Amino acid sequence: MQKVVGTGATEGAPVIAVIGGGQLARMMQEAAIALGIELRCLVEAPDGSAAQAIPASTVGQADDAEAVSRLSGGEVTTVEHEHVPAEILDSVGARPSAAALRFAQNKIVMRSELDAPMPSWRVARTRAEIDAAIDELGGVAVAKAATGGYDGKGVAVVHPGEDIPFWQPGQEILLEEKIDFDMELAALIARRPGGQIEAWPVVRTVQRDGICFEVTAPAPISEELDDRAREIARSIAEQTGVVGVLAVEMFLAGDRLLINELAMRPHNSGHWTIDGAATSQFEQHLRAVADYPLGPTDPIFPASVMVNLLGSSLADPREALGRVWEADPGVKVHMYGKEVRPGRKIGHVTVCGDDVEELRARAHRAIEILEGKK
Amino acid sequence: MQKVVGTGATEGAPVIAVIGGGQLARMMQEAAIALGIELRCLVEAPDGSAAQAIPASTVGQADDAEAVSRLSGGEVTTVEHEHVPAEILDSVGARPSAAALRFAQNKIVMRSELDAPMPSWRVARTRAEIDAAIDELGGVAVAKAATGGYDGKGVAVVHPGEDIPFWQPGQEILLEEKIDFDMELAALIARRPGGQIEAWPVVRTVQRDGICFEVTAPAPISEELDDRAREIARSIAEQTGVVGVLAVEMFLAGDRLLINELAMRPHNSGHWTIDGAATSQFEQHLRAVADYPLGPTDPIFPASVMVNLLGSSLADPREALGRVWEADPGVKVHMYGKEVRPGRKIGHVTVCGDDVEELRARAHRAIEILEGKK
Repeated sequence: MQKVVGTGATEGAPVIAVIGGGQLARMMQEAAIALGIELRCLVEAPDGSAAQAIPASTVGQADDAEAVSRLSGGEVTTVEHEHVPAEILDSVGARPSAAALRFAQNKIVMRSELDAPMPSWRVARTRAEIDAAIDELGGVAVAKAATGGYDGKGVAVVHPGEDIPFWQPGQEILLEEKIDFDMELAALIARRPGGQIEAWPVVRTVQRDGICFEVTAPAPISEELDDRAREIARSIAEQTGVVGVLAVEMFLAGDRLLINELAMRPHNSGHWTIDGAATSQFEQHLRAVADYPLGPTDPIFPASVMVNLLGSSLADPREALGRVWEADPGVKVHMYGKEVRPGRKIGHVTVCGDDVEELRARAHRAIEILEGKK
Repeated sequence: MQKVVGTGATEGAPVIAVIGGGQLARMMQEAAIALGIELRCLVEAPDGSAAQAIPASTVGQADDAEAVSRLSGGEVTTVEHEHVPAEILDSVGARPSAAALRFAQNKIVMRSELDAPMPSWRVARTRAEIDAAIDELGGVAVAKAATGGYDGKGVAVVHPGEDIPFWQPGQEILLEEKIDFDMELAALIARRPGGQIEAWPVVRTVQRDGICFEVTAPAPISEELDDRAREIARSIAEQTGVVGVLAVEMFLAGDRLLINELAMRPHNSGHWTIDGAATSQFEQHLRAVADYPLGPTDPIFPASVMVNLLGSSLADPREALGRVWEADPGVKVHMYGKEVRPGRKIGHVTVCGDDVEELRARAHRAIEILEGKK
């Protein structure tokens, strides 16, 4: 009996290389298997989330030009995170391109070069500039590292004189108006190289400690607002020339929509589409980067609620799978094969149906069981 | 950069070993990735359909006791085909068990030991017995090899004196009444070790050259017939003690339902459940064999139509993916990563919606494109 080693697909299979090997690449593989697309991914460690699911995985870092070049091998190449240097993206003709991805990599670029509704913002380099900016922005501001922030890291609410742990004098930092929002929304769309765009319904997102925690699709907003949010996302897709999935996180304050963050890849706010939409964001991302016609984005159910599993008191929350389904056999469970660490995203559940409040209660109960609280 | 070799999941992951590495194991993997279950499968060749999707694949034959024992390693073990000897199934405590699987392995056992509505049948061993049986069955009969038949192989319509290519004198052969049926149906259910059973709606199947070609879910039959067919399947599940998915193929003749074949694993007649039901047969099979509570089996859409891709004139039908979606972006495509051979099952498409005739037309058009006919 012989181990099978990174077996490739039969000759002629479409191949897509993915830089990054976390849960997003893992969920792309569910779609790729169905479509007969061979995914290759670059994982940081041999037991990474995607390596468990993708035979053609190689270990390497996203900033290692040679590793990325070998992974790509001239095939369509995409990313599952933003932390890839521009020259490496360019060298493999990545989709999205370096020129597009810089809007998601650098928050100052995003604020200063996009034509889209934004909160007020300033760039500062010195302590004096920071405090002046905070004053101008109303005595309190949201400080954001220009690059490298993720899941609440590199973001802090600051008053004049207060320490900003991720800032060092001389470094450019973004200071934004602290928006007293009524709701956070996300508009998810996909774009093909030739410009075809498809948009899912806009969703409501709820954060916990800066990490996406709960998503309700569609968002409880008017059709006019849904249209307006999709239109903003479409305009950003066209301005940036993104190829693949684009998520635009927004604040809703009164009737104002203001851009918060961008992501150019499948996004946590779109996980509900696996179970709740005609085409999942993972299939759509593959279709977009491989330049296939995009799929329909209609929701299959009146409502879907997704809740993330952020850490657990269980050694492995998969111990609790049986208990989740004893309580509620209709919960769709998604586990990422990641070790438990406090607050770490290690899975999510989705519940689809009619009544949003009932779906929320069901999804949170399932998450409490996986967290070891029930 | 280092190749990742059959990386296992993190410690504590539920593990399921699958004997067999065709498209059924491949589609189980789509469900397993989502649930965080580590699948291990035994493939016949390193480029097998499932080996492309399952990092923990090993090459070996299903009748190699040592290969199966190493694959299993004491974990829950299931099958994706019936061609596994009883003593090997017993040695790893397979689900379904050898005692259950013999009803699907041996058509004479199925006919003689099950209490269920059957066509008339005879067993013969000599040419004289065969011809006498054909006479008794009305001058024509369906001859079936007791074991090893598959996708129309080992089945022939025979008149007295006619050759039966898969029979040799002395060998037991089954001869069945040729049913002049109005429709072929399949009832798909899943059963857990403790006896919990869930049934999907009964579907209509259409065969081409003895191979399942088109499935319509639900079948265009009365609720009374649907109930009766599900009840027959439930009774067979209980009589056999099957664990996992059970497919019962039936003839509908007038108002009579007659058992044709059994399969104890996910089945072609249930592929529509991936896109069209609250729980797919692949997730349900994993839940059943791992003894988790079963999921709901409700259809998500009023109707789903699945059509198989049986061979293609294209070197690789995946060349045509773009053209399929240009014609109809809503078609759900499933490719098995198998090389093209005439009549070979290499993929399927599913279309879900309201109007069965429209769905059939859309599914067949997509298949014609993948066949290279359009």
